[in-house]
Amino acid sequence: MKDARRVAVVGATGYAGFELARILLRHPAIERPAFYLRGENSNARCLTQIFPQLRGWAEAPCRTLSVPDIAASGAATAFLATPHEASLEFVPELLDAGLRVVDLSGAFRFREPQTFSRWYKLPEPSAKVASKSVYGLPELYSGKIGNAHLVANPGCYPTSVILALRPLVEAGWIDTARGIVCDCKSGASGAGKEPKRETSFVEVNENFRAYGVFTHRHTPEVTEHTGVGLKDIIFTTHLLPLERGILSTISCWLSAPRQKEEIEAEFRKFYAGRPMVRVWPGGQLPELQHAARTNFCDLGFALDDSGERAVIVSCLDNLGKGAAGQAVQNFNLMHGHSETAGLL
Amino acid sequence: MKDARRVAVVGATGYAGFELARILLRHPAIERPAFYLRGENSNARCLTQIFPQLRGWAEAPCRTLSVPDIAASGAATAFLATPHEASLEFVPELLDAGLRVVDLSGAFRFREPQTFSRWYKLPEPSAKVASKSVYGLPELYSGKIGNAHLVANPGCYPTSVILALRPLVEAGWIDTARGIVCDCKSGASGAGKEPKRETSFVEVNENFRAYGVFTHRHTPEVTEHTGVGLKDIIFTTHLLPLERGILSTISCWLSAPRQKEEIEAEFRKFYAGRPMVRVWPGGQLPELQHAARTNFCDLGFALDDSGERAVIVSCLDNLGKGAAGQAVQNFNLMHGHSETAGLL
Amino acid sequence: MKDARRVAVVGATGYAGFELARILLRHPAIERPAFYLRGENSNARCLTQIFPQLRGWAEAPCRTLSVPDIAASGAATAFLATPHEASLEFVPELLDAGLRVVDLSGAFRFREPQTFSRWYKLPEPSAKVASKSVYGLPELYSGKIGNAHLVANPGCYPTSVILALRPLVEAGWIDTARGIVCDCKSGASGAGKEPKRETSFVEVNENFRAYGVFTHRHTPEVTEHTGVGLKDIIFTTHLLPLERGILSTISCWLSAPRQKEEIEAEFRKFYAGRPMVRVWPGGQLPELQHAARTNFCDLGFALDDSGERAVIVSCLDNLGKGAAGQAVQNFNLMHGHSETAGLL
Amino acid sequence: MKDARRVAVVGATGYAGFELARILLRHPAIERPAFYLRGENSNARCLTQIFPQLRGWAEAPCRTLSVPDIAASGAATAFLATPHEASLEFVPELLDAGLRVVDLSGAFRFREPQTFSRWYKLPEPSAKVASKSVYGLPELYSGKIGNAHLVANPGCYPTSVILALRPLVEAGWIDTARGIVCDCKSGASGAGKEPKRETSFVEVNENFRAYGVFTHRHTPEVTEHTGVGLKDIIFTTHLLPLERGILSTISCWLSAPRQKEEIEAEFRKFYAGRPMVRVWPGGQLPELQHAARTNFCDLGFALDDSGERAVIVSCLDNLGKGAAGQAVQNFNLMHGHSETAGLL
Repeated sequence: MKDARRVAVVGATGYAGFELARILLRHPAIERPAFYLRGENSNARCLTQIFPQLRGWAEAPCRTLSVPDIAASGAATAFLATPHEASLEFVPELLDAGLRVVDLSGAFRFREPQTFSRWYKLPEPSAKVASKSVYGLPELYSGKIGNAHLVANPGCYPTSVILALRPLVEAGWIDTARGIVCDCKSGASGAGKEPKRETSFVEVNENFRAYGVFTHRHTPEVTEHTGVGLKDIIFTTHLLPLERGILSTISCWLSAPRQKEEIEAEFRKFYAGRPMVRVWPGGQLPELQHAARTNFCDLGFALDDSGERAVIVSCLDNLGKGAAGQAVQNFNLMHGHSETAGLL
Repeated sequence: MKDARRVAVVGATGYAGFELARILLRHPAIERPAFYLRGENSNARCLTQIFPQLRGWAEAPCRTLSVPDIAASGAATAFLATPHEASLEFVPELLDAGLRVVDLSGAFRFREPQTFSRWYKLPEPSAKVASKSVYGLPELYSGKIGNAHLVANPGCYPTSVILALRPLVEAGWIDTARGIVCDCKSGASGAGKEPKRETSFVEVNENFRAYGVFTHRHTPEVTEHTGVGLKDIIFTTHLLPLERGILSTISCWLSAPRQKEEIEAEFRKFYAGRPMVRVWPGGQLPELQHAARTNFCDLGFALDDSGERAVIVSCLDNLGKGAAGQAVQNFNLMHGHSETAGLL
Repeated sequence: MKDARRVAVVGATGYAGFELARILLRHPAIERPAFYLRGENSNARCLTQIFPQLRGWAEAPCRTLSVPDIAASGAATAFLATPHEASLEFVPELLDAGLRVVDLSGAFRFREPQTFSRWYKLPEPSAKVASKSVYGLPELYSGKIGNAHLVANPGCYPTSVILALRPLVEAGWIDTARGIVCDCKSGASGAGKEPKRETSFVEVNENFRAYGVFTHRHTPEVTEHTGVGLKDIIFTTHLLPLERGILSTISCWLSAPRQKEEIEAEFRKFYAGRPMVRVWPGGQLPELQHAARTNFCDLGFALDDSGERAVIVSCLDNLGKGAAGQAVQNFNLMHGHSETAGLL
Repeated sequence: MKDARRVAVVGATGYAGFELARILLRHPAIERPAFYLRGENSNARCLTQIFPQLRGWAEAPCRTLSVPDIAASGAATAFLATPHEASLEFVPELLDAGLRVVDLSGAFRFREPQTFSRWYKLPEPSAKVASKSVYGLPELYSGKIGNAHLVANPGCYPTSVILALRPLVEAGWIDTARGIVCDCKSGASGAGKEPKRETSFVEVNENFRAYGVFTHRHTPEVTEHTGVGLKDIIFTTHLLPLERGILSTISCWLSAPRQKEEIEAEFRKFYAGRPMVRVWPGGQLPELQHAARTNFCDLGFALDDSGERAVIVSCLDNLGKGAAGQAVQNFNLMHGHSETAGLL
């Protein structure tokens, strides 16, 4: 028998994994989560062996990853904070074993399996599994998420961009034919924990650079969930010399002049009842610092005097609302908990 | 008699002023520059009283600011690293006293005096003086600068954006009717030395934010010198958690599909013989770190597979090519020195 | 009638005040705390006017500071996150009004009122009030704190140093006659929120400096609570280019050679049952990052091969265990709550 | 025939190597230096292939490392910016080939070969070669350096500590029997360019930690050149979240009370005529920022009211005076150039 209070976490040894552990270990509806590890970490027996900084705060058992063991554990839900390749392999097995899955990788995020293989240069996910997958952006798809067996947790940049664009795109207020520019900037924790020259301190500190221009794997998420055509969007990502947070600056021309008040009202209407989106009032723009270490996505905008050009600014924590926090928000919806449980 | 080897520096007590001092004190064609100070610094008698970190490296005399004293000193050129208001006052006086002037403020940058007063909320500069002023962007206006009595040194952001845009705008390759988005990011030294809450360490560190959206005073420089209409450009500035450097990400749609090689060739042709612009080869993008603490403006670009969308990246040091270095580059042209004298 | 679940917070508009608000707003034994503000903030009616980043997370009423209003509110406890001068004035009034007080300032930290006036260059606190004050270091004085009407919350540096030194000093294992060197480094949030040149981003970033050498006001707390004579200690503070955290490196010679195991055992014995001190095992040294944003004080040490020289490293968060978190830990002891309530 | 104007640089692909290249490429007494590379870089044909950021600034030929080629090139001097192991191998060969050598590694820094092997866990250097080696600290040993065939360039930390301690130790003013504590902090460029978890951005940023306590390989340099016994010194190193610079805080008790003026005078006397040491006046303490990106070692001190306890603060750039700059300073002395040539 599956127990809704029990969860299995697979592969949570990176920065998003640590954030996920921190949230789950304090979640009011979860009893001690179990961690299943692979490779060099597979001998760990408790979480403070992986994250010594948790000592004195919380402890949890670690086990060598085994789908049968997870199945036998009674956990109703599995979180996968694994590389894409590992998710391709383990998500179908976990679903077959009767678990509901929240996958933080990109493996099952796309309507068409070949979208994944083309952008990620990896094998196609199973079409059958992919067809069951729900894109885990709670502010847009809470109904489907509630019933999903497999939730594909969105990428950090797409969460930031889609939440910023959807209200005005859906209202038809943006002149999408002129094109939309999404200029996104992320802290270095988004690049992962594996040591690399380009994420060493000396290369990131006092530096700033664009990367993956026109090739970033998060691009198809943005087009699929905003409905803007690939050729009408320019989505550029940059590396900020800070640890956590994404700020996206989205520039567009409106299809007809608007007043500030109208736009703010449209944002507020769209996100009414959505506790994890904060609309900044009166033309104020959010700062990255205020969303960092929270599960909020903060939105604000500026309009020119003529009401024809708009800049929307969107801030979130790439490990929080952009990864682990959103995964728990999806879990909350899947199990009928308050959407914000464990997240405020 | 004016002596071309002698220069007077007015008001160089801020960050750009320090950079100017560092360059001038090592310039091969300048003999010990004299510094003229106002306000709280007017009693300083030598530069190491203002900048103790110069001790053991270089020294220079400081005097209380007095235009007659400057006139009597024999200096042929005055650099003004003063607030806009002070430049409004002293530039005309120094010109009347027969000096040639490089003004780092915004006071004389615009064709129409009212452009200045409208965007800066300050009195109009003298129309007669403004009409003589040459916009000091050496890569575009070296001929005029050579003969100028007054050079208005460009803003840091405009230098970055104009140098990135001019080659393709002039070639007619950008579909300006779709609009151009200039998403610019600067280090905190650009915000000046005066203590303010928003530039205190705790507010800038681990933070990132947009500011002055649609109202930034550098906007009219960008439109005047790219020829792009105000409504067809979105120019947004952001504050980076680092000391020095600007990176501008410029997104646009091309009027017809292009090959990478064509675009690189166009940039190279445009900047042939311009030693302070470096075109990054083969689709490589410059990083802020490599332009910081230099007088280079580094340019690179990415093109999508269809050759229809382009992202141009431009990097420079806001205190170097964006301020003090460029001022000296202008000085070099005004006096027939090698353009790079003192700058490599 | 006083209600133990109600607390009044005075003057919490700085960085430590924000941290205090964050903790109190989530404390399981506290009902909506009320905030009493002075000066420019006295018109605020709710906390998100002061700290907009709390929007969507928590709200609390703000009122103009008035001791009679606090007295009438039924709050049993007042937290003062005020300048020393303000605490000198308001602490006696609040005690007279029957409240128990946790004061985060330095005003009532010393056995002798003149110690305060000499080191802080401010008037002496009331001797009568000072004599009732208990130094709020829970790991040393939990019994007295439980009964105290006035708890003087320790300074951030002293907390770090005293907790590191007490076990071995009390054991008599340190050769104090040779002298002890406490080399302490703090993040910039410790310097407060008021804009100053020396805490502006450009002056702190990529910089490091010692300050207040032999004159730091935290010195007498260190000598009083370690029992080491002023002339046998060198206590030096430095400013780190980061936001939060203190790391103290304490160097000493032992009175007789020791084994690593003995020293670790002594630390563990001393802090047995003290949940907010973590002794790092096996010669590992704590890093600032692991204590930041927690209420822990992390302790570790290294010993030379001969067992004669020791370096003790102590890490904590200057706004947490060094200020607001410790204040709440004291509150917990005063009211018989679990010492860690609201702090894990 | 050897040509004094020609130099060979071996292995300059790390951070100190880059700094060395920058200095040599601008040195007035050096003609285009040649770079000899090994391993993955051995196919590079010009320096901008290794350091693209030099484009437009300077170029230099690169060759595959070969001692006979260096010998045949006519270079009179070789700089080695190589790992210790490589220096063990190539220094003797280069000396045999008639070159004078400045070695930036630790291989030949010690009087006794076994000191190196014990602290570095590497084979002993040739005793014959080691006996000819001169410790390249120009402020102490300029005479010997002038005649040396092999200069062992000091470590960054030892340079900082030895220059701070020598004046008062030599004067006999420090009570060394009480012990001296050298608490040193370095930026991350000192940890090298090889990617490692512990020097990745996320691990260094907003962090601070001690490392190598009682085991740091720079320890024996400090004891040898200050004359303080190993057991009377505690030398601790820390990693700062910044790129460049070392600040050492040195705490000691004086053998008799002194006045500030006496101590300042002693420092000034000791460093009279030494252009690369700056003594900070009047009890001012140097900041890391002011020495970074220079070849200065900045010294200052604080004294307690009784004149019995002293804190000396020493700042330098770990890649400059702590490595590449000092190597060139040694080169200058070896060839009779001005000591500061190429360094101001």
